[in-house]
Parts: sequence; C-alpha cells; structure tokens
Amino acid sequence: MNTKSFFALLLCAMGAMTVYAQDAVDAKPASTNVPMAQYPKVTADNRGVFRISAPKAQEVVVDICGKKYNMTNDGQGVWTATTDPLVVGPHYYALEIDGARVNDPSSRTVYGCGLDMSYIEIPETAEEAAYYTYNKDVQHGQVRLCQYWSNVEQKQRQCYVYTPAEYEQNPTKRYPVLYLQHGMAENETGWHIQGRMANIMDNNIASGKAVPMIVVMDNGNCDYGFGSKPGEQFNEFGASFYKVIVEDIIPYIDATFRTLTDRENRAMAGLSWGGFQTFNTTMANIDKFSHVGSFSGAIFSLAAGDVKTLYDGVFADADKFNSQIHTLFIGTGSEENLGSQKVNDNLNAAGIKTHFYLSEGTAHEWLTWRRCFNQFVPLIFKNK
Amino acid sequence: MNTKSFFALLLCAMGAMTVYAQDAVDAKPASTNVPMAQYPKVTADNRGVFRISAPKAQEVVVDICGKKYNMTNDGQGVWTATTDPLVVGPHYYALEIDGARVNDPSSRTVYGCGLDMSYIEIPETAEEAAYYTYNKDVQHGQVRLCQYWSNVEQKQRQCYVYTPAEYEQNPTKRYPVLYLQHGMAENETGWHIQGRMANIMDNNIASGKAVPMIVVMDNGNCDYGFGSKPGEQFNEFGASFYKVIVEDIIPYIDATFRTLTDRENRAMAGLSWGGFQTFNTTMANIDKFSHVGSFSGAIFSLAAGDVKTLYDGVFADADKFNSQIHTLFIGTGSEENLGSQKVNDNLNAAGIKTHFYLSEGTAHEWLTWRRCFNQFVPLIFKNK
Repeated sequence: MNTKSFFALLLCAMGAMTVYAQDAVDAKPASTNVPMAQYPKVTADNRGVFRISAPKAQEVVVDICGKKYNMTNDGQGVWTATTDPLVVGPHYYALEIDGARVNDPSSRTVYGCGLDMSYIEIPETAEEAAYYTYNKDVQHGQVRLCQYWSNVEQKQRQCYVYTPAEYEQNPTKRYPVLYLQHGMAENETGWHIQGRMANIMDNNIASGKAVPMIVVMDNGNCDYGFGSKPGEQFNEFGASFYKVIVEDIIPYIDATFRTLTDRENRAMAGLSWGGFQTFNTTMANIDKFSHVGSFSGAIFSLAAGDVKTLYDGVFADADKFNSQIHTLFIGTGSEENLGSQKVNDNLNAAGIKTHFYLSEGTAHEWLTWRRCFNQFVPLIFKNK
Repeated sequence: MNTKSFFALLLCAMGAMTVYAQDAVDAKPASTNVPMAQYPKVTADNRGVFRISAPKAQEVVVDICGKKYNMTNDGQGVWTATTDPLVVGPHYYALEIDGARVNDPSSRTVYGCGLDMSYIEIPETAEEAAYYTYNKDVQHGQVRLCQYWSNVEQKQRQCYVYTPAEYEQNPTKRYPVLYLQHGMAENETGWHIQGRMANIMDNNIASGKAVPMIVVMDNGNCDYGFGSKPGEQFNEFGASFYKVIVEDIIPYIDATFRTLTDRENRAMAGLSWGGFQTFNTTMANIDKFSHVGSFSGAIFSLAAGDVKTLYDGVFADADKFNSQIHTLFIGTGSEENLGSQKVNDNLNAAGIKTHFYLSEGTAHEWLTWRRCFNQFVPLIFKNK
C-alpha cells in the first residue's frame, strides 16, 4: 500500500456522508449519529428525519417504533422520510433497501434484536434526563470488562462490572452486589450503553439515595431471538444461564472483587426476559438473594395463575417470604401490557409485599428500564 | 403491548437469519458473526462466503480487502458471493445493495472507517493466534471504561484503561503507563476489540516478557475520515488531541490510578494516524515520555526528509536523544508501503537507535498492529 492508497482507504468512511440537508430548520442531528453525520435528525416535535443514499434502489423503508415509513427519492438517489412524532428515549430501528433489512450507516449501532442494530435517541428535557446524564460535579465509578473462565461451559465469558467511585479509595471495604440482566436478543453491553447504568448509579450514590454497590452485568445466554436456534424449545431458551450464574459468575465475582457474600448483600434484577430469568434464579435460590427486581419482566405465569403454586410454592407462606425478600420490585411502562400490573396484584393478593412502579408514557423499551433501575437501586441493601 | 406483540418484537432479529447453506462443505461460520448466523463463512483456503437476503434488489456487491465481488441471486432473492483467498486477520467490509453502502447484518460491527463497520476475522492457526488468544491458565487484567471531565474541551470524555491482574492484589504498588492510540476513523474501542490488547498484555505479563503496566486507550480526536468535516485543513486533523492528552488525560490517569509519574515510566504508541500523533506528542514532550512506538505510523515527513531538521531538531543530537528515549520502535506490515522502512533508515542514518519490526504477509490492518504491539510491550520499562 502506498501513501495514495492509504488515503483512498478513508473513502470507505465517506459513503454515509454524501447526504445533505434541506428540511425542517428546527431539526438537529441525533446524539446517536456517527461522527460528522448530519442525519438522522430529530425535529422539535420529536419526529425522526432519516436519509440514505441508495442510487439504484426501487424502494427504501425505515422501520421504527413498530411502524414502517416509505422513504422518498429526490430523483438523484437520496432517500428521505420524516416519521410521526416518536416517543422519547432510545429506539432500535432498521432500513429496508429493496427488501434487504440493514442498518442505517449514519447511526451508531448497539447490540439488540440479536445483532448490532441502528439506534436513535429521542431526547428528553435536560431535567428529565438528569438522572441518567453524566454530571461532572459528582464522583464517577468505573465499568470493568472482565474475562473469566466458565467451568460450566468450558469457555471464556465476559461480564461488565460497575465499581463505585469510592471502591478505589477504600481498599479494604467490601460492597453488596447487584446482578443485572438484559432482555431477549440483547447482551451484557445493554445496561452499560442503552441503560446508562453507570450514570444512574453515580448520580444515585452521590445524592445519597443509593448505597455504594457493585453491579454485575453478564450475558444471559439469550442474546439471540427465540426461534433462531434450530429445534430449541421455549422452556430451553436462556435456561443454560441458571447454572452459570450460580456456579461460575457469583464465585468469580466474589473471588475477584471486594464483595459482601451473604444473601443480605446480594440482589438480582432484569428486564423483560431478564426479569423472567431473575425470578427463576432468585426464587430457586432464596438462600443467596434478598432483593429482587423485575422491569417489564416476562413472568407470564405470575400474571396468569395462582401464585402460591408457582416457583415450588415459595409464595405460599407470605410472612416467611416477606421476611426473607426485603425488596420485590415490579416495574413496567404504561404503554406496554406485559402483565406486570397483574403480576403485582396477584402477588399482593397472596400477601406478598411489593414495590410497584409505573413509568408513564413509555413502552417496552430502554427508557422504561432506565426509570425502573433508577427507582430500584435506592431501595436495596437498606432494609435488613 | 400485549404478549403476542412482545414475541412479534423478536422477528426483528430474524431478518438476517433467513439465509441458509449450500456451499463448500469445508466452510465454517466466521467467529465474528452475530449469534446463530451461519453466514459469512470462511473456507479452508481462507475465502469468505457472504450471503444476504435482498428480495427486490438488482445488484448486490461485497467490498472486502480492496476488491468488490458481485453477489449472485439464487432466483429467490438470496445473494451469495465467494471471494478470493483473503489474508489472515480481521478485515472491515461493506455491502452495496443497489448502490447503498451498508453493513452485513450477519456480522458483528466494530468501530472503524468512521462508523460501526461489518467485521470478519480470517483465522490464523491456533499456534499463530496464541499470543492474542484468551488463555484460561494465566491471570487476567481488566479493561476499565472511565468517564472523565475534559477541562480543555469542556465536556466528558471516555477512555479504556487496562490494569494488570496483579493491580488488585498489590494495593499500594504503582505501575508504569503506556498511552496507546488508534488510527484515523477509529476510536478508543479499537485496541480493546480489534487489537485484542488485553489478551496480548495478559499473555506477555504471565510469561514474564513484559512488566506489569497500565495501558490507556483514549479517543485521538480523529475518529472520522479526513475530509468529512467541512473546511478542515489537513494540519488540523486530530491536532486538538495534543492539548487534551497533556492537560487532561495524563493528569486524570495519574490522579485516578496508582501510576509511576516520571518520564522513565511513561510510554506512548499508536497505529497509522495514531503513530503520527505519537511522534507529535512525544517529540514535543521529551520531558514526559521515554518509550515510543509507531505501528505503520503515518509519519511521512520522517520518510521524506532530513530528520535532523524535523520535530524542532530533537534528532539533531543523536547521543542526547538516545540517552533520553530508551525505546524507539518502528513497526510495519510487509504488504503495505507507508514508508516505515525509510523512516527507520533515515533515523538510523542520523544516529538514532531504533527497534525495527516487519510483520510478514500483513497489510495496513489490525493483524499487523497486534503483532507490533506484541513486539513492543516486552521492550518498554526495562532499560532505565
């Protein structure tokens, strides 16, 4: 390669950049764009304006928030669409170019829907977003990428581990641990990137709302869509995780970090399928966990049936359960109907104490889960 | 959202999965595929087999390793191409679907070329790959994602910081620091993901070849392609980084980690444009650095001219320079010609001592830089 071809290499970066503007003057490039990309934009009334160069295409569609929008060709192969007003928060989305479902090269990708998906954030106000926004005036924890060996799976795995700012400054202090799970077809990166968990933890610890804690985010073995693994039964989906968390992850974390290792100081929470996995893990291991959170959890059996017969009867003796599980948090968005309200009602009817939280105006998406997390972390590791 | 639409959500994950196999029996799914994706595959002779569903497309192309391959429609909208044998190591690549340059939804993305690019790794043998492969029998460091406030830029920035395994076990020990930069249109994630730096460090430390050190990977303010920022002059590209590394990054790292803060214990290296930035940073701050590495560095002036007049004459007194800079490493791939051999010759002709390394059979890509890094880290922080 000579010098000229070195610079020719850079042209690969510029395919996505040949797309320029004439649209609503109030529209601003999304915060989730790749560097220098002017599109997608977000209008003052929260419409997305999407644009891509597809010179020879016959049909280009943007698929976002459950609706497909046909994009319009300007006659020179630049396609544009403006959506309806979108709900605030982050959304996965895709383009369809002559039937091929692909990413928008102008947006950053995050892991969701079983692959690296295009991602756009429709911003809240600064005040609404404060709890998940970096604050330069508070101390900041770190998120550590840790590789470890799984004896169960006989391979290396990776987890993300948040340590609070004071962890470095108190070299003998031990901390409680929250295990925090993503949803179906997401992975261990979700809470760090889409969930903004480090900012939420930093802000809650700095304000004194939450106690300093370690947060562990691992892969729930459900990082693909159910149905894409040939022959897999529904009850097998993500089920291999239960042995891994108990036999590999918790021992690794307790051996590597300065943790408090008793059940009073161990919590677990998860979103959607991770909420289902949280119930399956914690209810079968009451000796290991004392705080539990479900954020839009896919715990359909609890919504449907007599809870006293479920999970090997753990809810049958409500007084015993309430004395053991200090926090049982059930959160959901108002614009989804995954049964969380019914789960909560059924548990309460059986005498089980819960914290119920309804996120107003949000759906089965990450803004609901940021809010749930922000409500959950102040509750735990306090009521021993 | 009801339960049925919850499962409908999952269908988004499956667009990329509707593509099945009938090809060379020896071809295996690439390690860089998204979960469950059968394509791309790599044949025994290192050809890539790419496949995508694009039912209404007229023309689909895969662009990899500097060559475009037309894909063939099976008559039902599934397009396939098999490439020539590809050089081993990781490659960025793209698809062009009716002229739209996009990612392959079946591959993981990494940040390169100014956006989240499709990525495929053509594997080396296990023996060749051992130095950058996870080894369960050695101790593992951590890579910490750290947000900090930049006074220079008045915004938060993010860096990746590798700490060696023993960092946790020696709570008062201080460590030397290597600052390690990515190339043009890449970012602070590159060395961790494409570069496999944590595995390379773990293996070098475990074998005793390298001393335990902290490695800092930050964004060089050149994470887009030159030319995509309107009006920017070439001498401005990435130049804002020099003030940031000296005034923000080094003070933040020294305040946050247990570092050795004298020049004897601070090194800097970078690849391609990051090599250019490394020379600009270190040669202007000899009081702060004593080990320097350029991996395929874009240091064209050193290849072209009388080195004694460059960098404010830092090379004019060779004895002085050689006594101050303990390691000056110049590495390159044999299949690129960015002038590194000439840089090395010119420096040697001026009496400057160097370590020259040629990676056989590799180009201006990450396998060259993994190898350079593996050669470089055993040299530094030893010859005080």
